[in-house]
Amino acid sequence: MKFKIALLAGDGIGPEVINEAVKVSDAIAKKFNHEIIWTPALTGACAIDAVGVPYPDETHQICMASDAVLFGAIGHPKYDNDPTAKVRPEQGLLLMRKKLGLFANVRPTFTFPSLIDNSPLKRERIEGTDLVFLRELTGGIYFGEKGRRDGGETAYDNCVYTRAEVQRLAKKGFELAMTRSKKLCCVDKANVLETSRLWRETVQAMEKDYPEVTVSYEFVDAVAMRLVQWPNTYDVLITENLFGDILTDEASVISGSMGLMPSASVGEHTSLYEPIHGSYPQATGLNIANPLATILSAAMMFEDAFGLKEEAEAIRNVVNKSLEQGIVTEDLVAKGVKAYKTSEVGDWLVANL
Amino acid sequence: MKFKIALLAGDGIGPEVINEAVKVSDAIAKKFNHEIIWTPALTGACAIDAVGVPYPDETHQICMASDAVLFGAIGHPKYDNDPTAKVRPEQGLLLMRKKLGLFANVRPTFTFPSLIDNSPLKRERIEGTDLVFLRELTGGIYFGEKGRRDGGETAYDNCVYTRAEVQRLAKKGFELAMTRSKKLCCVDKANVLETSRLWRETVQAMEKDYPEVTVSYEFVDAVAMRLVQWPNTYDVLITENLFGDILTDEASVISGSMGLMPSASVGEHTSLYEPIHGSYPQATGLNIANPLATILSAAMMFEDAFGLKEEAEAIRNVVNKSLEQGIVTEDLVAKGVKAYKTSEVGDWLVANL
Ligand SMILES: CC(C)[C@H](C(=O)O)[C@@H](O)C(=O)O
Ligand SMILES: CC(C)[C@H](C(=O)O)[C@@H](O)C(=O)O
Repeated sequence: MKFKIALLAGDGIGPEVINEAVKVSDAIAKKFNHEIIWTPALTGACAIDAVGVPYPDETHQICMASDAVLFGAIGHPKYDNDPTAKVRPEQGLLLMRKKLGLFANVRPTFTFPSLIDNSPLKRERIEGTDLVFLRELTGGIYFGEKGRRDGGETAYDNCVYTRAEVQRLAKKGFELAMTRSKKLCCVDKANVLETSRLWRETVQAMEKDYPEVTVSYEFVDAVAMRLVQWPNTYDVLITENLFGDILTDEASVISGSMGLMPSASVGEHTSLYEPIHGSYPQATGLNIANPLATILSAAMMFEDAFGLKEEAEAIRNVVNKSLEQGIVTEDLVAKGVKAYKTSEVGDWLVANL
Repeated sequence: MKFKIALLAGDGIGPEVINEAVKVSDAIAKKFNHEIIWTPALTGACAIDAVGVPYPDETHQICMASDAVLFGAIGHPKYDNDPTAKVRPEQGLLLMRKKLGLFANVRPTFTFPSLIDNSPLKRERIEGTDLVFLRELTGGIYFGEKGRRDGGETAYDNCVYTRAEVQRLAKKGFELAMTRSKKLCCVDKANVLETSRLWRETVQAMEKDYPEVTVSYEFVDAVAMRLVQWPNTYDVLITENLFGDILTDEASVISGSMGLMPSASVGEHTSLYEPIHGSYPQATGLNIANPLATILSAAMMFEDAFGLKEEAEAIRNVVNKSLEQGIVTEDLVAKGVKAYKTSEVGDWLVANL
């Protein structure tokens, strides 16, 4: 098979981790007789520097013409201190999500046996944790009308959802649940919010189409608690944009493997794969960043975007092997133990595929 | 001194835990020569059953005429499965907050040395945790216009804040920080929301009035992570209503002492004190519920509402003593160890004050 992948390396360590993911993807493609055509494009702070906007139209065209997008990370400290600045890297992210119609953010959280003791939580609380959040990504309060009135003294943000938006996301949730343990949790705040009541009634109405799936409904505050208490009691969770932002980040730290977590944003036109970590500016150019989250995101891409399960498994297996054998970057080694460079980890994975 | 306290026991275990808090408060009053006049009033499911609404006007009048309100818990399973029902206990809560102008919810989270191993987090992560959230409680998306359009197919909730609302809450935050370690964290989502940008600019403008306070600004998703990773790096946190709902509940489970956490809601007309736990319907009438969170809420009331620090300390000391000596309800004892009844704990505290 032949694939066109848009390559959005972004800022900070983005280019370095993307580089390793490309190496591993190319090696997999070679091994399984596929051809990948990579098309690099600018996004984030580097795009602002180059052309004045964080998601240039040219980048958008490249993404639209691709079978998938592989994304590094964006953000630069010079934009950090002023979230009210006119042009900021994150705006590119939101614009990209909206224009590409990336409506479902898929965020798995699972444990690696060799990393479990990195978790702030006790081992017995997290063993067996293997959950997936589906976060709605193009609606809600992120994209509703916002502004000021009363001469700037009053600010407002509107949260809006349509039934169709909820159905689209929930459908993905039910389908994913069917491939896993058939448990779905709808996270809302239906005791307070009208949008949440729409979410709940819409999901309730869909239950009859998936008679095998057991659906539970939990309030967002209760989930924020139970994620810390008993993360391994969850399987597939669906939720709206803002709740998803908060809960997926909370969930990412419980497994102890945050630096390794991949994600996907599934869309109408294409889908995008990216590590959940940020652009880690302090490490830029030092060849020390952990490339595994990006490489595991590439594995998700092979499986979900191209339907190539075996290729994805091959990547995951070699990543597991590197973890077991301690071929890892400095974030994963104990003091005094030899750490490998970003590019060395990539080279090792390619050699051991 | 002489105090009038409205007594809102509520539903489930509410009456049982309130009963013990009254016993301890009366004993403290006697010891320190104060007089308390308690006025019971209905709220929650029991109010719906009795008079058809969850926060009757008579209850409101009693609260308005009081120096403080002591609150148990509300909620009953018969209202649980349908958050869209016309009349529900939580509506009483929201109405009460709004009508009493309870704009600042004060939620401390701290550890008890004897309970630290109950936490899902590792001991070294939580030792020394002692933080306070100030959650804005009468504004934001909870109280903005909400509804449907397009024949019910579209739902909306408006989030609105005025500068004056932010200033009022932030002022409490700065003042509280001055009495503690002079660290204040403003939690927002200023990279996405206009209301958050108003929060941030308002707090930034107030910094000059509190030159000794070090203020940090963090995004809500980052805080959701760091609360699990390093809760002991926080001190005073201020935030808007919905973020506060999620984060205070998340924070409550990290210390391992959730069943003991008190809270206050400070208002324009009066202030209200309540345990953070719920109405625990399964335990109703069994005399097994832990009364300590309610008793510690009464301690907050003595200190903050009446300015009686010594009285508050006396309550906290005897609670600590009961924990050290294992005079605790079944939720806090290991299997096989003798548990005390709700009322026995209260009796012991009174006898040992
Ligand atoms: C950078 C920010 C706008 C973004 C979001 O809130 O969606 C980020 O936190 C994320 O979760 O991808
Ligand atoms: C019951 C509910 C309306 C309430 C809230 O969301 O404020 C509760 O979760 C709380 O935090 O007191």
